[in-house]
Amino acid sequence: MAGKEIEKLIKAVAKLPALGTRSARRIVLQLLKKRDEQLLPLIAALQDVAQNIKTCETCGNFDTQSPCSICSSASRDGKTLCVVQDVADLWAMERVGFYKGKYHVLGGVLSALEGITPEDLNMENLPARIKDEQIEEVILALPATVDGQITTHYLLSRLKDMPVKITTLAQGIPVGAELDYMDDGTIQLALNSRKPL
Amino acid sequence: MAGKEIEKLIKAVAKLPALGTRSARRIVLQLLKKRDEQLLPLIAALQDVAQNIKTCETCGNFDTQSPCSICSSASRDGKTLCVVQDVADLWAMERVGFYKGKYHVLGGVLSALEGITPEDLNMENLPARIKDEQIEEVILALPATVDGQITTHYLLSRLKDMPVKITTLAQGIPVGAELDYMDDGTIQLALNSRKPL
Repeated sequence: MAGKEIEKLIKAVAKLPALGTRSARRIVLQLLKKRDEQLLPLIAALQDVAQNIKTCETCGNFDTQSPCSICSSASRDGKTLCVVQDVADLWAMERVGFYKGKYHVLGGVLSALEGITPEDLNMENLPARIKDEQIEEVILALPATVDGQITTHYLLSRLKDMPVKITTLAQGIPVGAELDYMDDGTIQLALNSRKPL
Repeated sequence: MAGKEIEKLIKAVAKLPALGTRSARRIVLQLLKKRDEQLLPLIAALQDVAQNIKTCETCGNFDTQSPCSICSSASRDGKTLCVVQDVADLWAMERVGFYKGKYHVLGGVLSALEGITPEDLNMENLPARIKDEQIEEVILALPATVDGQITTHYLLSRLKDMPVKITTLAQGIPVGAELDYMDDGTIQLALNSRKPL
């Protein structure tokens, strides 16, 4: 009803995460109305990314170069490796700016439900990387979900015989949170792991 | 933190309606991961639309041709004109498939708050179009909002001396709705406009 070019674009937009046909239609309409201000710059930005961004062969990050700018940076601590689920988590860590080591992006976590095995993830080369780069500490910064914790334990068993310190992020009440809004599991865990002042 | 190409794309995506930086980041990450299945087809679909879709000079619809396929269709009733706010409303009417006349897309409604005057809308040529095309009925299908109703009354005053029948969409309880979930205004209006059975 809106012409096949427009319908095709609506379908392509509706496949993006968190968007459905209705929001895709609104987005496409706005793009059509703001051709010069939004549609053409968006096409240029997408093309730029499609042409220039590659996956880093060392850590799995996205960058214009491989090894990426983090992997090839001399100013970062090359002895500490932070294992994350996704590039989004790497970005979150970099936004904070506190961590100065390097990364290893798994590209997901193990999942019996979704049939994700170690072979599906960027995991096989991790022991070799730890050895080659003489890593001294591996921080397993995987999600605090069941699948994330299973992946943490799997990696722990894989790496336990290597001469490397393995740590994980602290769990507990987030900064600024009120107890009343916390789930029971978090409160119990925070109580169990309570610290002397 | 994610490279300037990626940051630029995230900014361009975040400007789209209903999207913020967070959802834009998720979308860009998915596009980067699904380069061949999603990123390249999306670029192609956007380019196709950017190159081929124009605004119909007669009614304001978006189509590959101007006049658009509705305006130039011989099988549609050329004596009835439905005035809508936006191309999205035209699409909604076409999805229903019940209306067989032609359209006139205003591109918005009058708004004192947003400073939208008749000159900002595709309104000036409406009287000439009604005369030239010998329109017999104008259906004002504008939104049931304050601004929409003001626009309806403005058009009514502009067209009242023309030999044309002017109608508007019926207002009342939507099909399938429960009274309990209706706002007070709608219930009052539906009561006032009650019909004998």
